Amino acid sequence: MGKNLLMEKNEITVLGAGLIGTLMAIYLRKQGLDVTVYDKRPDKRKTPYDEGGRSINMALSHRGWKSLGQVGLKDKVLPLAIPMYGRKVHDEHGGTTFISYGKEDQAIYSISRGKFNQLLAEEAERLGAEIRFEHKFLDVNFENQEITFETKEGKQKQIAPVIIGADGAYSALRTAMQKQIRFNYRQEYISHGYKELTIPPTAEGEFAMDPNALHIWPRGKFMLIALPNPDKSFTCTLFLPFEGAKVCFEKINDEADLDQVFRSYFDDAYHLMPDLKTEYFRNPTSALINVECYPWVKGHSVLLGDASHAMVPFYGQGMNCGFEDCYILNQLIEKYGVNSWDLVFEKFQKKRKPDTDAICQLAMENFIEMRDSVADPKFIIRKKIEAKLHELYPKEWIPLYSMVTFTDMGYAEAYAQGKLQEAIMNKVMADPLITENWDKLDYLDIIDKLETAKAV
Amino acid sequence: MGKNLLMEKNEITVLGAGLIGTLMAIYLRKQGLDVTVYDKRPDKRKTPYDEGGRSINMALSHRGWKSLGQVGLKDKVLPLAIPMYGRKVHDEHGGTTFISYGKEDQAIYSISRGKFNQLLAEEAERLGAEIRFEHKFLDVNFENQEITFETKEGKQKQIAPVIIGADGAYSALRTAMQKQIRFNYRQEYISHGYKELTIPPTAEGEFAMDPNALHIWPRGKFMLIALPNPDKSFTCTLFLPFEGAKVCFEKINDEADLDQVFRSYFDDAYHLMPDLKTEYFRNPTSALINVECYPWVKGHSVLLGDASHAMVPFYGQGMNCGFEDCYILNQLIEKYGVNSWDLVFEKFQKKRKPDTDAICQLAMENFIEMRDSVADPKFIIRKKIEAKLHELYPKEWIPLYSMVTFTDMGYAEAYAQGKLQEAIMNKVMADPLITENWDKLDYLDIIDKLETAKAV
Repeated sequence: MGKNLLMEKNEITVLGAGLIGTLMAIYLRKQGLDVTVYDKRPDKRKTPYDEGGRSINMALSHRGWKSLGQVGLKDKVLPLAIPMYGRKVHDEHGGTTFISYGKEDQAIYSISRGKFNQLLAEEAERLGAEIRFEHKFLDVNFENQEITFETKEGKQKQIAPVIIGADGAYSALRTAMQKQIRFNYRQEYISHGYKELTIPPTAEGEFAMDPNALHIWPRGKFMLIALPNPDKSFTCTLFLPFEGAKVCFEKINDEADLDQVFRSYFDDAYHLMPDLKTEYFRNPTSALINVECYPWVKGHSVLLGDASHAMVPFYGQGMNCGFEDCYILNQLIEKYGVNSWDLVFEKFQKKRKPDTDAICQLAMENFIEMRDSVADPKFIIRKKIEAKLHELYPKEWIPLYSMVTFTDMGYAEAYAQGKLQEAIMNKVMADPLITENWDKLDYLDIIDKLETAKAV
Repeated sequence: MGKNLLMEKNEITVLGAGLIGTLMAIYLRKQGLDVTVYDKRPDKRKTPYDEGGRSINMALSHRGWKSLGQVGLKDKVLPLAIPMYGRKVHDEHGGTTFISYGKEDQAIYSISRGKFNQLLAEEAERLGAEIRFEHKFLDVNFENQEITFETKEGKQKQIAPVIIGADGAYSALRTAMQKQIRFNYRQEYISHGYKELTIPPTAEGEFAMDPNALHIWPRGKFMLIALPNPDKSFTCTLFLPFEGAKVCFEKINDEADLDQVFRSYFDDAYHLMPDLKTEYFRNPTSALINVECYPWVKGHSVLLGDASHAMVPFYGQGMNCGFEDCYILNQLIEKYGVNSWDLVFEKFQKKRKPDTDAICQLAMENFIEMRDSVADPKFIIRKKIEAKLHELYPKEWIPLYSMVTFTDMGYAEAYAQGKLQEAIMNKVMADPLITENWDKLDYLDIIDKLETAKAV
């Protein structure tokens, strides 16, 4: 039944009107397909609501821009974004060190979820997609593609010939797939949670810190970060273990506890946060989940974005990866046509799964780098050596962070090459005099070692 | 609310009247607790039904017997069980080799699910547990411990102060827990499925093969096994990849395909299976799942058995491990008392989780041994060397299989020691003349190496 409908109609149902669902709808409309997007939440334009703990700020980087550029949205999005050219690391005494992300002009862009999502939703609607809010997806019968929504008017059933699940880390479409046999699934929470806080503009209405950097207060087992907003505030995110550590959410129970932690570890930030106490005890403490699953396809339904691969936020790739999903799915639709969904979805999951596994893994590993390694002076030397290698041999040696953030090579390939480079760099850094000698290394020899390692 | 009820009443709700749920009910009744067991299936005594693809035969070993012995059930179960003293390996030409599982008198016991389950259910009822069939658990509110069942008379709600989920690999209690934040969960299907077949008794009413062995036809990527039944038949299980291999379920579509596979690979068994064709195309092909999750506890609810750790069947430990869960949970109830469920459940999951992770992993690894290694002549030499080590130094060297099957040392400890032994044995087996020299090895030196490795 689904199949026949499919032949007759090019009706696509997208679940989730978040960033990924709306961008996918834009791509599909550009392919001339009928698109209806469903979201359980109300229309924010009519009923403003709180994100309820979902992260407010994200870092848009190359893969994201590429995917937006493909549908002509780069110029519209740019005004919402603030470039961050590197990490500004704050030590415990208020001193800071700047570490570039890449070459001089390479940046990642701080962007706020709310306005960005609205821009994409309006763009999708402008192109003819319909967005139906307050439609909560309940279940799907994969035999006949009948889906059930809960609406204010009660349950609604309808046939959806093709379903794209962009309904996030707690995807209801994925839950439906999980009831099917031979669905592999894994969800893992890390021991840390997070809480969002604010550094408002100064009394003069200016940014309280350098706006063109991602600020980090790395403290070993925990950290604070801050990203700039167009209104000249910063959104800060505090990452702490939930429990069982010297500094953890469980042990901050009153204003005195909070003061003690912030004055001891984040004193410079503390003085920029007049609303700390109110915000800390009002804002939710959220958990961080990693989700991996396979297959992503069942019948004429496919998962993408966080629905199929929710990652922890430490590589800043969750949204970029989801946007790249849209880009790649669209490429496959162009290649195989709009009537070959079985083939398109199958090719999509086969191609994409190794890459999303790699970025999930990288995101997990980068948490240690962010909260710990960046505070190590040797880490800066390491970054300098890699930057110089990249400058001298731009094609042969690309630092892992750059491969992930400033190129669109497959994440799995970046991961593999990154591991080779890491092994070589570990040996380079083992030299006890590296701090003095780093500039005089035999850089060509390092490149030769990498080429040899790659050839194995 | 749950807590107050808990103080007043010692009412325990067990979900699942399978092997684990009924044994747990027996333990709880012996502690003087009120026990009600719920199962979605009808009472088999009134409405016989098909297991629908669930494995019929299991291998009861030391941990299982110990757990049954603790509640005085050993003598009642023994008549249902047939000892298997080793593996009888069938080669492609009909030749067989016998490999002992352990010492001469050590055996694992073939037992059929149906009668065994009935014995345990009746024992639980005899001791005063109530079993309510046709009660399908739907959900629980962890705030107030209110559970909802679906029954023939419609939905039924009730308060359950303490809930023990022994509802199997597809546990509904676990599904309810999975909706809670910070629940780690993983389900993985292996690429192989299985199908059950039968070797009936001979025309003379005798066993068609040696009944005191577990028969294996190892064929590298796939295998057939057979376990004896008290009615003198054997239950055979065919393990094949679902698809994508030379021999796989997907490529057996008619009787000619089936004949071809069985005549080529299992010819001796083929001649003992008059109903092969009927059974093959009538019986379901089932999938094999591995499930790991954590925590196992939420409020006053705990998971045990397959509900918290479903494993693939290749170590014959699924049931034994579930029974040991009951034994250990009971030990903790005895230690901390029947009014300390929070403490008992917390201690239970902390103590047990590393062990169940280890046996899940071992079960996965043993599939390769069963379907492949046992056919290697060097494997037999290896087993002989290990048996001799164990004979000479019974406490110092216990083969991994024996630690798992014939002792009750923690699975995690067995796993760790097994890995040390494996590394040492790999070196021993690397001697190109090992087949000739195995009996003349310096066995004390091997033990010394193990002691050194352990000390590190």
